[in-house]
Amino acid sequence: MEIILASKSPRRAQLLQQFGLDFRVVAGPALEGSCGEPEELAVSNAVSKAVSVAPSYPQALTIGADTIVVLDGHLLGKPGSSFEAETMLKALSGRVHQVMTGVALCLGSRVARTFVVYTAVKFRRLSEHEIRAYVQTGEPLDKAGAYGIQGLGGLFVEEIHGCYFNVVGLPMPRLLLELRAFGIDVFS
Amino acid sequence: MEIILASKSPRRAQLLQQFGLDFRVVAGPALEGSCGEPEELAVSNAVSKAVSVAPSYPQALTIGADTIVVLDGHLLGKPGSSFEAETMLKALSGRVHQVMTGVALCLGSRVARTFVVYTAVKFRRLSEHEIRAYVQTGEPLDKAGAYGIQGLGGLFVEEIHGCYFNVVGLPMPRLLLELRAFGIDVFS
Repeated sequence: MEIILASKSPRRAQLLQQFGLDFRVVAGPALEGSCGEPEELAVSNAVSKAVSVAPSYPQALTIGADTIVVLDGHLLGKPGSSFEAETMLKALSGRVHQVMTGVALCLGSRVARTFVVYTAVKFRRLSEHEIRAYVQTGEPLDKAGAYGIQGLGGLFVEEIHGCYFNVVGLPMPRLLLELRAFGIDVFS
Repeated sequence: MEIILASKSPRRAQLLQQFGLDFRVVAGPALEGSCGEPEELAVSNAVSKAVSVAPSYPQALTIGADTIVVLDGHLLGKPGSSFEAETMLKALSGRVHQVMTGVALCLGSRVARTFVVYTAVKFRRLSEHEIRAYVQTGEPLDKAGAYGIQGLGGLFVEEIHGCYFNVVGLPMPRLLLELRAFGIDVFS
């Protein structure tokens, strides 16, 4: 069965590739919400991305995903400016936050499966100099929570508890298990 | 200061690159031991790799590293055969093991700093079919514990507790902090 990745994120495409899946990227004009309980939001955004694309590919399996960062119950989205990025990184410094990725799998127009995977991420204490230098690299600006764990932002992470790939943008081990129900298996 | 990476592992070179460090790979004929307490072994192997190279580069900082996998106090080295790889993966299935990377930093012939970083890794339960199919890809054969977390082996990992990069082969956040004492900083 053909796989459609309904996401503009180059990091998600790279993860699917790394684990040997064949797929096509078709990102639609999905609306991302920003209120509601974090896990519901992650799932509803994932569904929204998938269903904006899936009906055009009735024979394919379409994957939608949304990764959100939550600190003390507050959502940290993509920073709108360097100042906002610095503020987020100062808030994350020395503390544990949650990363949740919601995933939606669609068969044609039908939402066949949704799930959320959680990872706890602990940042070490960051200096103002580090934060400013990191923001100047431009890396934080298109990323929820203002950091990329697979980039220079990985240097801020003291430890994680849970799935690493989930923080990058797709919980690969879990996703691959779920894909088996649709006859897709990297080990077959 | 010039950095020398005293390791043949392409994964370690890739990690240094990913985090923006300039370095040269010079791997010597270091002897790896296989007895003693796990953490002592990881450090002594790291030292052995670094000192086999460092004296030839008196002005440089030489990095040696060794990653070992421990299950129930038993060391899992690189599997010598497909059969041994299957046996290791069966043992890891459904359980938590420890990954330790020992790191040695040498200035000329002087061992200036050593440290060990620990990560706990939990495997999900694997089927015999998955294990056999994974071993057939050839990926496990050159890797301690018979898997690579950054490859297809990542699909076996239910969760980790600690540093992800440590399991790949170098504890990058910690290493970068240690390198500051030698005047090397990716954020300067």
